[in-house]
Amino acid sequence: VTEKRTDAAFEQALQEIGAKHYHHLHPFHRLLHSGQLSQTQVQAWALNRYYYQSRIPQKDALLLARLPDAEDRRAWRQRLLDHDGERASDGGIARWLRLAEGVGLERQYVESTAGVLPATRFAVDAYVNFVRDRSLLEAVASSLTEMFSPGIIAERVAGMLAHYHFVSPQTLDYFNARLTQAPRDANFALNYVKTHARNFEEQNAVLAALRFKCDVLWAQLDALYGAYVQPGQVPHGAFMDAGPMASVS
Amino acid sequence: VTEKRTDAAFEQALQEIGAKHYHHLHPFHRLLHSGQLSQTQVQAWALNRYYYQSRIPQKDALLLARLPDAEDRRAWRQRLLDHDGERASDGGIARWLRLAEGVGLERQYVESTAGVLPATRFAVDAYVNFVRDRSLLEAVASSLTEMFSPGIIAERVAGMLAHYHFVSPQTLDYFNARLTQAPRDANFALNYVKTHARNFEEQNAVLAALRFKCDVLWAQLDALYGAYVQPGQVPHGAFMDAGPMASVS
Repeated sequence: VTEKRTDAAFEQALQEIGAKHYHHLHPFHRLLHSGQLSQTQVQAWALNRYYYQSRIPQKDALLLARLPDAEDRRAWRQRLLDHDGERASDGGIARWLRLAEGVGLERQYVESTAGVLPATRFAVDAYVNFVRDRSLLEAVASSLTEMFSPGIIAERVAGMLAHYHFVSPQTLDYFNARLTQAPRDANFALNYVKTHARNFEEQNAVLAALRFKCDVLWAQLDALYGAYVQPGQVPHGAFMDAGPMASVS
Repeated sequence: VTEKRTDAAFEQALQEIGAKHYHHLHPFHRLLHSGQLSQTQVQAWALNRYYYQSRIPQKDALLLARLPDAEDRRAWRQRLLDHDGERASDGGIARWLRLAEGVGLERQYVESTAGVLPATRFAVDAYVNFVRDRSLLEAVASSLTEMFSPGIIAERVAGMLAHYHFVSPQTLDYFNARLTQAPRDANFALNYVKTHARNFEEQNAVLAALRFKCDVLWAQLDALYGAYVQPGQVPHGAFMDAGPMASVS
């Protein structure tokens, strides 16, 4: 009796989820990468994704807190370093803030997260709670979207530099670091789920966790698309809400 | 020194939030109530709102668990009864399932929540987590949207009966019960926050909790609008996804 997929079949199943559900397929990304967005729309993307970036170290600390093995904890600790940096001026969050400033946003407004779409907040918080509340295996598995990020990063950097006059290589510095960090992290997580998923059921839980994470990323772009590409559905108080309720707290 | 708003000023501030941010203003509701949606779009609304309905008793049990006063717990317990009923055939969730069947959905599909939009799930779960994690005062305050529901229910029932051939008074039975339950519940919660908010800061926390809840309701309609009114943004695997990825788990 086969009790679990082979490693190759398991990895293939993970790759298929990425090929079909990762957010590289989302129309908002197609517009972003091919230069079809206005500067304001690019700002909306940078502003909302800041909320995601800002919660990643908290997510990683929750996961680290659950790892019983010191070696695993040391490996995972690198993620905290990558995002929070050694000092205020480096690390992924600092680089994302420079990206946001680079496309014309005020740093203080971005850091306040005041103009973030509620749907962005709900999706990102769902991710953090998933990592806190689900099995450790599922929590690790939810990070596996990094398997697919080098492809989208290459496309994004080339596309944005070619199409937007307000985007410089320095502005996109964040992604350079990710090109080496993401594969290293994905490799660790992939080995972890291969080792720790002991049967079909646990492998299925890993696949479902990856699919969940794809939904988290996809929903953030749906929210951006609905509010800033399709006309007129900016929620009250969010970035660029100019309706009669704009000034209401 | 005035240390808190008068009851009248506080209630006025709550009413203003409702007047400006409650989901009666959302374009999806305007379409729903004026007969401008297809039966499929009405189904999408019923299906997604089922997820909200189904989580309300869990939300109320989390809140009840936090109430130190037996009298308050007894009052709040009525909500569990209203939603879960005395037996499988009554209560708000059973009535909502009849509404969903009434507009042409299969009960089992609705109960599975398989076709629910991820953004619906994220918003509703954010509400449940808010009630679990925030101060008890904020948790109670987040239910205050019921202050505004009789108005929208009256408009909805009249509008849907007038415009949709597939909607009968029996289908909308859910809302009849809510017309008496919601004001009773809102009255309890309003008295609670008036009594327990001891200063401006706590009153502000109450106002922010109500605003948060308005965002939770609004975001659910944004998701419906983006997926089912605007063309083509149905997330993979959600209700009516007919794209090439429809059959993928």
